[in-house]
Amino acid sequence: MSLEKVYKYIDAHTNGFVEDLVKLVKQPSVSARGEGIEACAKLVDEMMQEIGLSTRIFKSEKGNQVVYGEKLSKKSGKTLLFYDHYDVQPPEPLEKWTHEPFSGKIVNGKIYGRGASDNKGNFVSRLKAVQTLLEVTGNVPVNIKFFVDGEEEVGSPHLEPIIKKYRDSFSADAAIWEFGGTDRRGRPNLYLGLKGILSTEIKASGASKDVHSANAPIIPNPAWRLIWALNLLKDKEEKVLIPDFYENVLNLSSEEIECLKSIPFEEEETKKELGLKEFLHNRSGLEALKALLCQPTCTINGFVSGYTGKGSKTVLPHEAIAKLDFRLVPNQKSNEIYRKLVMHLKKHGFGDLEIIKHGSIEPTKTPINDPFVKLVAETAKKVYRKRVVIYPISAGSGPMHLFRNFLGYPVVSVGCSHPEANTHAPDENLKIESFIKGTKFIATLIDDFAL
Amino acid sequence: MSLEKVYKYIDAHTNGFVEDLVKLVKQPSVSARGEGIEACAKLVDEMMQEIGLSTRIFKSEKGNQVVYGEKLSKKSGKTLLFYDHYDVQPPEPLEKWTHEPFSGKIVNGKIYGRGASDNKGNFVSRLKAVQTLLEVTGNVPVNIKFFVDGEEEVGSPHLEPIIKKYRDSFSADAAIWEFGGTDRRGRPNLYLGLKGILSTEIKASGASKDVHSANAPIIPNPAWRLIWALNLLKDKEEKVLIPDFYENVLNLSSEEIECLKSIPFEEEETKKELGLKEFLHNRSGLEALKALLCQPTCTINGFVSGYTGKGSKTVLPHEAIAKLDFRLVPNQKSNEIYRKLVMHLKKHGFGDLEIIKHGSIEPTKTPINDPFVKLVAETAKKVYRKRVVIYPISAGSGPMHLFRNFLGYPVVSVGCSHPEANTHAPDENLKIESFIKGTKFIATLIDDFAL
Repeated sequence: MSLEKVYKYIDAHTNGFVEDLVKLVKQPSVSARGEGIEACAKLVDEMMQEIGLSTRIFKSEKGNQVVYGEKLSKKSGKTLLFYDHYDVQPPEPLEKWTHEPFSGKIVNGKIYGRGASDNKGNFVSRLKAVQTLLEVTGNVPVNIKFFVDGEEEVGSPHLEPIIKKYRDSFSADAAIWEFGGTDRRGRPNLYLGLKGILSTEIKASGASKDVHSANAPIIPNPAWRLIWALNLLKDKEEKVLIPDFYENVLNLSSEEIECLKSIPFEEEETKKELGLKEFLHNRSGLEALKALLCQPTCTINGFVSGYTGKGSKTVLPHEAIAKLDFRLVPNQKSNEIYRKLVMHLKKHGFGDLEIIKHGSIEPTKTPINDPFVKLVAETAKKVYRKRVVIYPISAGSGPMHLFRNFLGYPVVSVGCSHPEANTHAPDENLKIESFIKGTKFIATLIDDFAL
Repeated sequence: MSLEKVYKYIDAHTNGFVEDLVKLVKQPSVSARGEGIEACAKLVDEMMQEIGLSTRIFKSEKGNQVVYGEKLSKKSGKTLLFYDHYDVQPPEPLEKWTHEPFSGKIVNGKIYGRGASDNKGNFVSRLKAVQTLLEVTGNVPVNIKFFVDGEEEVGSPHLEPIIKKYRDSFSADAAIWEFGGTDRRGRPNLYLGLKGILSTEIKASGASKDVHSANAPIIPNPAWRLIWALNLLKDKEEKVLIPDFYENVLNLSSEEIECLKSIPFEEEETKKELGLKEFLHNRSGLEALKALLCQPTCTINGFVSGYTGKGSKTVLPHEAIAKLDFRLVPNQKSNEIYRKLVMHLKKHGFGDLEIIKHGSIEPTKTPINDPFVKLVAETAKKVYRKRVVIYPISAGSGPMHLFRNFLGYPVVSVGCSHPEANTHAPDENLKIESFIKGTKFIATLIDDFAL
């Protein structure tokens, strides 16, 4: 295949590609509140049909639609799947946007809007790469599948039954995950895994209503019970105290540790932005990065009980609630951690507490020595002409494990975003230059994958 | 003095007395939000002037007016002071009232409205007792002083400088405190003291804004720091762990313990109302009552941090706040307890926490063998013709210590309320029968005090 012709086509069609992305950005699709979700699913379906893919909708009883698109190759049995999502984060706080969050306005070569990078930009760049190959060569060199999730930003809670029921539809030899981009030095960043997460809520109950705090000597106070229970979960040295919490944690291989050394980690900028003198436990450099990427955690996301307004109020609360997430690393399992948590609290006399499981995602990673990782890294190096930075795992979470562990193929996350993209923040944007470069990269990757 | 004439006058003027109370109840005076405070102070002033008292307003820079009224006796140098307050609790929740909270509606012999019992009913009953004595005898047998606070329901935060600056104005030989009434068996209840209170807020701070919880391995979490700090304050056996917290706690005398035995304590009703199987630590009977009245406490009134809405959110909070009150008993001192709290947290590595003092009131009590206590008890027994129940101290708090400890005279709380008065709750009311009986009691007490 002539990559020269492919790149030329992409350059010649930049305006049209950008127009399509702007159209998709203009369609709100906030999964957290169901805003515009159905209309956006329809638009994604139409965009895939337009370039010649066969599409299909998958839906579990409760969740948003998964929009699926497929193009079979005339000459290869190999399959590459793209995992993307059409839903976006809520745009709030609205007052901090320079341009309307669903405007798709183009200023100084950047397309502004919620989802411009995460993940509509990446999705369209991949779609346009496939369109280019079809237009230039009349074929795709491998079978192509698009799996476009509608609930990624809310933890993909309804994905598992779909994947399990229609597993054959999603079979592939490898997958490219939804996120990624270049760093400040223009180096493409590859991510080989994601942490898991277990979201819980712990609730202590007392009397049937708040009472006057003068009754403290005789009325049980659930706020205190929650404090004592939470104190059993983690010590001041940040060690999680749940027995066997660290069981099954895989240590990094020497090759993975080597990778960490080339990862850009903007310590001073991060500290300055967050008003911190030091990171936790004065961690810095490789030690901080290793903790960030590889350490499982137990984090209080929030708690509430009784009176929380100005000044004071002499009240004894009737209930106390804490929200906690556990970030898990390979090979921890969320249901085992949940069971250990419940057992631990019960054993220490807190069997009366309600422990709710709000959701979970398993950790996963593709080994750094997997041939697909090598292929993606080589293609990235070739297209970007920069050293490739590999994250053996990312600090974030997502449903990658369903593809990597359940469907059983290697998954690498790599994309067309850039360091000032403001994903999940006001003024999210995508540089047109990054978008086009990313489209060329994906076209090249598909070509290389066919070999 | 002919008590017969006095009682006859009171009976004959019941309608007028009730009308005056209704008028005062109809005037909102919610100190928590300043609603109607000035108009109510004016009304109290006018009501006192109307019966022939000289009045004066005392005011510190920030607080509400104290309305003061005085009538000198033509034949005695002894002085009796009444401490009352014209402010009331907020009426919320409004939807739970059968009658409008500021209607003063009379139904089945009860005057309904916020403040009907606490404390407008008691204040008017005392005022009408003095009016009766003046009308019937043309004199008061002792000097009478009315100290009518405007901030009792918010902890009287501005009273101390007034008392200290104008101490001579408030000199007396004894005082009757604002609250009290009869119990379900019709027995008059006397209260000889009040617990103190120290209201605090403990605040832990982290980054300058909430961050994504994926950053937990490197960003300090103030929610955890607050948990660990609070855990240092009280153990699971409810023992306060602040060193020397229990120093200076006076044990009850054998005479006081004897008193406790006759105090009505509706355990089963209370448990049922609050949906509790057992009180804290399965306390019951005398043990529970003794704890309730005599034990100092450390109570979480509320706490808040990060995300507290439905479901889960992967956030790492930037700040965490807890509100705590310490109930103090004689002879603990609030500033010593505050100092011990700060020292304790600092010693254990939590010197970075902000520890705010929202307010404090000292504990106090008048000894059970004080002659004034004996006098009030005897008068009560004579008027109510029932055994008198004496609380050596109450579980509540109030500025009694300024009168008892600083001005230095005995203080007894006794009043005209009744067991179904719903003070601080919806449908607060006062039985006209109790109001009139209480007025007779106060008139008799003034007469007895003159002897």
